[in-house]
Amino acid sequence: MNFADWMSAVQNRTEDALAHWLPPADTQPARLHDAMRYAVLGGGKRIRPLLCHAAGAALGALPTDLDRAACAVELIHAYSLVHDDLPCMDDDKLRRGKPTVHVEYDEATALLVGDALQSLAFQVLINQPVDNLHDSHIAGQVDSPGLMGLPYCQRRLSMLLLLAQAAGSRGMAGGQAIDLAAVGQTLALEELELMHIHKTGALIRAAVLLGAHCGNADADTQTTLSHFANRIGLLFQVVDDILDTEASTATLGKTAGKDAAQNKPTYVSLLGITRAKALAAELRDEALAALAPLGDRAERLGGLTRYIVERRF
Amino acid sequence: MNFADWMSAVQNRTEDALAHWLPPADTQPARLHDAMRYAVLGGGKRIRPLLCHAAGAALGALPTDLDRAACAVELIHAYSLVHDDLPCMDDDKLRRGKPTVHVEYDEATALLVGDALQSLAFQVLINQPVDNLHDSHIAGQVDSPGLMGLPYCQRRLSMLLLLAQAAGSRGMAGGQAIDLAAVGQTLALEELELMHIHKTGALIRAAVLLGAHCGNADADTQTTLSHFANRIGLLFQVVDDILDTEASTATLGKTAGKDAAQNKPTYVSLLGITRAKALAAELRDEALAALAPLGDRAERLGGLTRYIVERRF
Repeated sequence: MNFADWMSAVQNRTEDALAHWLPPADTQPARLHDAMRYAVLGGGKRIRPLLCHAAGAALGALPTDLDRAACAVELIHAYSLVHDDLPCMDDDKLRRGKPTVHVEYDEATALLVGDALQSLAFQVLINQPVDNLHDSHIAGQVDSPGLMGLPYCQRRLSMLLLLAQAAGSRGMAGGQAIDLAAVGQTLALEELELMHIHKTGALIRAAVLLGAHCGNADADTQTTLSHFANRIGLLFQVVDDILDTEASTATLGKTAGKDAAQNKPTYVSLLGITRAKALAAELRDEALAALAPLGDRAERLGGLTRYIVERRF
Repeated sequence: MNFADWMSAVQNRTEDALAHWLPPADTQPARLHDAMRYAVLGGGKRIRPLLCHAAGAALGALPTDLDRAACAVELIHAYSLVHDDLPCMDDDKLRRGKPTVHVEYDEATALLVGDALQSLAFQVLINQPVDNLHDSHIAGQVDSPGLMGLPYCQRRLSMLLLLAQAAGSRGMAGGQAIDLAAVGQTLALEELELMHIHKTGALIRAAVLLGAHCGNADADTQTTLSHFANRIGLLFQVVDDILDTEASTATLGKTAGKDAAQNKPTYVSLLGITRAKALAAELRDEALAALAPLGDRAERLGGLTRYIVERRF
């Protein structure tokens, strides 16, 4: 399968799995469930699920085993976008080419959508049979997780911890807080990097390492992939800053130029566009070099690295 | 140990454990961590941790094993209060006798505090050695959970699922959504009950059942405690509505009379104060009756039931 076909296949199966695990829009509370589906489905590049599947593919993990991890990370990402777009944060009106959740619904609903998507991410990552998750209800008994061996069970707990830490105050939410404090400030390159390592890097790293866990990665491979993930996380952000400067709102599906408008420090504002592009090339090369120990098995991860640099939105 | 001493002991050990598991206020991002500690520490009746410890005590669970479950539930509760107090929700200025988080800090910080507390709740419930949780960092490797047998590991996954479902769109967050939709509406008693079963009942039930899980409760005992928890959850809410009508803001530590002011349906507005008090007495008796199969082992749960009815704030 060529890279473009593989990418489409992962995006499609992710969309299907998310649609399956999100509560149906006709179950109570219907407005909340409708808004959760609006926030998650029908858009997004699914970069994190792609990274999760690519890392898993490098280790021979089955796509069916990777879906939960991929969707859990995407649900955390989706919740963070909903909250980040709220008036008290970035106050953004457009996301993935559609009105943001608080514009389409209301602020209170958007707040609850984010909160509930975070809970759902953990529900999905806990490896329950799908139907149990869907049929369970607070009034019912909790079913035991399906049959599994001890190593599998312990690995699942490690994965849950990895996701919870990546989402929390020392990960993504912490990065948002650093971002808030940085508005209007002049940051050194190291400070900007620290912000992004948390804000976007933590979850991107989680996506890669959760995929690796699904493939029973040994400690050396986890270290290799962790190094790769740190590079790709920064690369993704540098490219985002370049696109925010150069692309149009129509192409991006979100408001272009908003970082500059909000006086937020970016790689472009700090380095200028030429040096930012040189940094992106450098990070791309470092990411690809980090994959060397995996040889041909890293094909999809390498393809994604190039895709991230060359993307136009 | 008499009931009052037991209650103080649980409240104190919960405060200590929360203070231990919350990130230190001098670690980055410091403002976020400071606000997280402000939101959680130094206040609150700790009803949910008390219920968790009381259920565990009925089954001979060790207090040290119960601390994680008790604190995880309390962290979810604390996050929900922070988000519930936001201007787009109840817009409340006072909580536990102090300015609410968005008043003391700012709205964006309060949003992130709630988000990060939810992540932390899951981190705490995953049974990692305490120091690993604290020393771990997104840049580091994830440690494997400590040594445990398969039944223990599977039980931990069941507990995580119970908490995630109780917090999510079919639990607490769903209850908030039903609450939003109910403002200004005339609800039937059944509809009001449905709202509270989700909004406060789901997490109270989780507190009881997580305590039961720590004591390796069999299916019959879980059913018994689930029935008890459903009664105590409604009882708690009916008493809350009575207090909101009868107590002063100074006594409550939060704004009194706000439900009526916001035109929210309550048991008092629906039934009148006399019938609401009769309902509380009925629910108390049903809760106590539900405990019968546990005999003397339910001493703490019975004591808490009476405490919840007799509380003045």
